[in-house]
Amino acid sequence: MSALNVLKIGGNIIDDPHHLSLFLRDFALLTGPKILVHGGGKVATDIGHKLGITPHYMNGRRVTDAATLELVTMVYGGLLNKKIVAGLQQQGANAIGLTGADGALLKAKKRAVKEIDYGFAGDIERDGVNHRLLRDLLNMGTVPVIAPLSFSTEGSLLNTNADTIANEIAKAMCADAAVNLIYCFEQKGVLQSNTGGTDIYPALHEHDFLRLQQEGVITGGMIPKLENAFAAIRHGVKKVVIGHAEDLHELLNGTKGTTIL
Amino acid sequence: MSALNVLKIGGNIIDDPHHLSLFLRDFALLTGPKILVHGGGKVATDIGHKLGITPHYMNGRRVTDAATLELVTMVYGGLLNKKIVAGLQQQGANAIGLTGADGALLKAKKRAVKEIDYGFAGDIERDGVNHRLLRDLLNMGTVPVIAPLSFSTEGSLLNTNADTIANEIAKAMCADAAVNLIYCFEQKGVLQSNTGGTDIYPALHEHDFLRLQQEGVITGGMIPKLENAFAAIRHGVKKVVIGHAEDLHELLNGTKGTTIL
Repeated sequence: MSALNVLKIGGNIIDDPHHLSLFLRDFALLTGPKILVHGGGKVATDIGHKLGITPHYMNGRRVTDAATLELVTMVYGGLLNKKIVAGLQQQGANAIGLTGADGALLKAKKRAVKEIDYGFAGDIERDGVNHRLLRDLLNMGTVPVIAPLSFSTEGSLLNTNADTIANEIAKAMCADAAVNLIYCFEQKGVLQSNTGGTDIYPALHEHDFLRLQQEGVITGGMIPKLENAFAAIRHGVKKVVIGHAEDLHELLNGTKGTTIL
Repeated sequence: MSALNVLKIGGNIIDDPHHLSLFLRDFALLTGPKILVHGGGKVATDIGHKLGITPHYMNGRRVTDAATLELVTMVYGGLLNKKIVAGLQQQGANAIGLTGADGALLKAKKRAVKEIDYGFAGDIERDGVNHRLLRDLLNMGTVPVIAPLSFSTEGSLLNTNADTIANEIAKAMCADAAVNLIYCFEQKGVLQSNTGGTDIYPALHEHDFLRLQQEGVITGGMIPKLENAFAAIRHGVKKVVIGHAEDLHELLNGTKGTTIL
């Protein structure tokens, strides 16, 4: 198999029809095998609000109770996943939408209850990615589009972070191909300042990341994203790039975004 | 490929967790290649009500406006499809959920506006079933589970009757295998009376059906179901049986239900 591109598209892009449409056009034009993992977006919160499901957070993470699990199954696995699949089909990419339950794609364990019960949140098991399924689907010429839901063998879907899913898939697919992992979101890359500047780091070593994290330059959601990125490189992923969804081609050829070294 | 069983499970069974669970257990135990097509169920109406989406009917058919299309995409393509997929995975069947957009499975045309505008309702195109996709998925050992949504090449999902989808899939798969088409619902078969009896016809010829329809014995939703069934037989489907979801094995071995001749 030629080099495989695993892309993750974040919720903020999905919430914006114009940017989503541009991204899907660029993604459809990419040649070679490719996989798209998508995040959630705030539409789940909006629909949950109308259904009387109030989001509940612990340590900045959403707690997935039974009602919220039904909500994200509908919205992530149904509405968003099929909107992306239909958009890609329209652009000529033969997308096929999947959750972690479909074809036993992503086996996970319900997160153990310690100080906090995160509810129906799943941590992907070691060897939990069904890379044979993905390889077969890619060989059929289809483009897997994956919602942020994993699956426990007890029969429940589980809520799992899309960055983590993209990371685990990229790592698992290294057995079959050279893999590039591209995190697309609404910023040009990893910012050099957390006080409003727009300059980014063109490249980051892990020791830089650890220092910048200590210095408080890299904060918030970027920390787990970068931890995932460095873990992917250590596990054999050829290239990891973080950048803006509208720069897809430049992220792949290395002229924009932050490349993880 | 050995004989392929295409099963359709109706909305009333899906609405009943106990019956659904029994059905999924029986379905998972069926040997050989199999495909499950599922209907909608009234949960879409319940969720739509909470979201302020009021169902609107013309000539007994639900009109699919844009809000309703989003609703059924969420509920049929997300909630119900993934509930069934997860239930089957738990029972050891390697289910993979699909709408008509996934893998370009079901190409349809938006129904033309004549006296009535049915909105986003799709009629499956001639040769609109991607039987190569289904064959490849079956050869991979997966069990396709199909939501009642088709897809137009203009990029929109469309609402399509699940009986019709099952019928079109059964016909299209005749190129590859001997196909049995089993409609499972909440009655023992085609009833001999529309006034409360429970006796069924063990078998029906088309000329019997036309007579019973004229006599007003067969009415309502059973008419399009039987029209679909006879059309399937004419197009090469080996066996069509209509009966209760709890009698799955007996429907397949011909000891219960109504067999279409």
